[in-house]
Amino acid sequence: MTHSNKPLLKVLAGETVSPPPVWLMRQAGRYLAEYREVRARAGDFIKFCFSPDLAAEVTLQPIRRFGFDAAILFADILLIPIALGRKVWFVAGEGPRLEPFDVRQFEDLTTDTVRSVLGPVGETLTRVKPELPDETTLIGFAGAPWTVATYMVEGGGSKDRFSARVAAWQHPEAFDGMLERIADATAEYLVMQAESGAEVLKIFDSWAEGLPEPLFERVVINPTKRIVDRVRAAGVTVPIIGFPRGAGSMYARYARETGVNAVALDTGMDPAYAQSILPDGMPVQGHLDPAALRAGGDALDRETDRILDSWAGRPHIFNLGHGITPDVPVDHVHQLLRRIRERG
Amino acid sequence: MTHSNKPLLKVLAGETVSPPPVWLMRQAGRYLAEYREVRARAGDFIKFCFSPDLAAEVTLQPIRRFGFDAAILFADILLIPIALGRKVWFVAGEGPRLEPFDVRQFEDLTTDTVRSVLGPVGETLTRVKPELPDETTLIGFAGAPWTVATYMVEGGGSKDRFSARVAAWQHPEAFDGMLERIADATAEYLVMQAESGAEVLKIFDSWAEGLPEPLFERVVINPTKRIVDRVRAAGVTVPIIGFPRGAGSMYARYARETGVNAVALDTGMDPAYAQSILPDGMPVQGHLDPAALRAGGDALDRETDRILDSWAGRPHIFNLGHGITPDVPVDHVHQLLRRIRERG
Repeated sequence: MTHSNKPLLKVLAGETVSPPPVWLMRQAGRYLAEYREVRARAGDFIKFCFSPDLAAEVTLQPIRRFGFDAAILFADILLIPIALGRKVWFVAGEGPRLEPFDVRQFEDLTTDTVRSVLGPVGETLTRVKPELPDETTLIGFAGAPWTVATYMVEGGGSKDRFSARVAAWQHPEAFDGMLERIADATAEYLVMQAESGAEVLKIFDSWAEGLPEPLFERVVINPTKRIVDRVRAAGVTVPIIGFPRGAGSMYARYARETGVNAVALDTGMDPAYAQSILPDGMPVQGHLDPAALRAGGDALDRETDRILDSWAGRPHIFNLGHGITPDVPVDHVHQLLRRIRERG
Repeated sequence: MTHSNKPLLKVLAGETVSPPPVWLMRQAGRYLAEYREVRARAGDFIKFCFSPDLAAEVTLQPIRRFGFDAAILFADILLIPIALGRKVWFVAGEGPRLEPFDVRQFEDLTTDTVRSVLGPVGETLTRVKPELPDETTLIGFAGAPWTVATYMVEGGGSKDRFSARVAAWQHPEAFDGMLERIADATAEYLVMQAESGAEVLKIFDSWAEGLPEPLFERVVINPTKRIVDRVRAAGVTVPIIGFPRGAGSMYARYARETGVNAVALDTGMDPAYAQSILPDGMPVQGHLDPAALRAGGDALDRETDRILDSWAGRPHIFNLGHGITPDVPVDHVHQLLRRIRERG
């Protein structure tokens, strides 16, 4: 990961690059007409994720249009439950559905078919890699075990992951056993992604918010560390970005204890506070409010400047603090990129 | 607020009381059979809130059953939009609905009918007060302007208050003007509650999470400070508890800049961090995970002990970090109270 000319890899190796490299979470998404066109003919969402030709195409679209510094694999965090033997389907306009899972059955989760079930995702990366400009970094990703587990236990998305939290308190051994199985499958999945060309791996813990410290340690820190350890034990050395969204003051322990190389910050993170708790020189990614990108105008310029100023002294990858929304005009993305690149 | 024999008022006056006084957010709620019985004959939810006899009855129920140290007014944070001239209704099983509000019309919001529209809420407090045991404190409350505004702009609850955030970035003057109107109405409402017997006032900012610092300052700190200043200017001296749920590291500025006397903490707040940023001696309230209360058993005992230990050196009111859920067995509440009171 050293001696690279790719700005994003330089930052992750500890260099401060100005202007910072930039990409956007969910940059392959519905705000792009060319994505909607592919999506319309892709049919079922899971099949779409498992179609390397279509997934590679939408992964590349935002690179062609905006020249982002990174392409991120098009896939979904709920492919892992499928690999573990669970049923997952998407209801149009509503989101994911899963057969609700009783954590006491965690030994039924099978971790030996990860590579066969998720092989098409590796194939997507293999196809994207040679199509990227020399300076563009390819990022692979997976959901963190806690976030994936909340969907498995709840049977889909939920307002506050309440049933998952209750299960974690009520059946700690089974719950932690389930998280270990998910972590092991996820580690193997990420190793496969690195072998298929991913130069960076990102772990999304989208539901890390609101967890009391003992639960945060059990369900966020430990399983994330388990993934990082296993990925490293497999000889994979690419940088790993962790994103414990909403973790607040628990970012401090997350950054120091999980082994991730960099952290992605959410919109609510106060930069002065983050500077005070993150290890010296640890790269950060983030964390513009997607609502400011949607709003555009002066607010977007001011917020872009504020983020740039906040991180001037630290290796920084510019990104949003959450995914780009479908209603964002493409012109606002151009405005954002102009503003960042003017800083060069 | 001094010279009181009420444990909760002692804590809010800066005393450390052991065992700490305890009450539970949403303690007048569906987990109680006697509440469900009243709710079933109350009909429309808004009418229920505006029926002093029924609202007083459910406010008192948890005091009779559990002997909590505080009774909290039964009402809803969305009564304020009604007082401001907006339509609000509840859809069974779904939640609140409001006519979506364009913030640019903020001058249409009328603040001169607060006392006439919300008079029945004062009447609820007047009826509850003489029925309370001598040692029980009566708490009034309101939603914070940002939280109330999110419902007004979104037309109801929403996953991430995205439209409200976009409006706040896009129309800053109108949005802040709207927040000022809501703050002024809320201040008058809280003054009326104090005049009607409330001995403590609590401001619920349930959606304070995920806000970038400039937005947090504009939509949370400034309007909350405006309320506190106006309540004080009216001569009301009762303690005010602020609850900026999910504010993370922004709790530091909230506690120092809004003028609230105490802060309620959410489930995700790390006690060691909170101790380091809160003003010396500022009372705190919270912050057991409602999922641990639902789980019961050893997890509940351990988490109860952890919260008690965390706050042993500071004036502390025991509470949840979020409202009690309808599925909590009453026995778990008894278990919690035994565990706390054994500490005496």
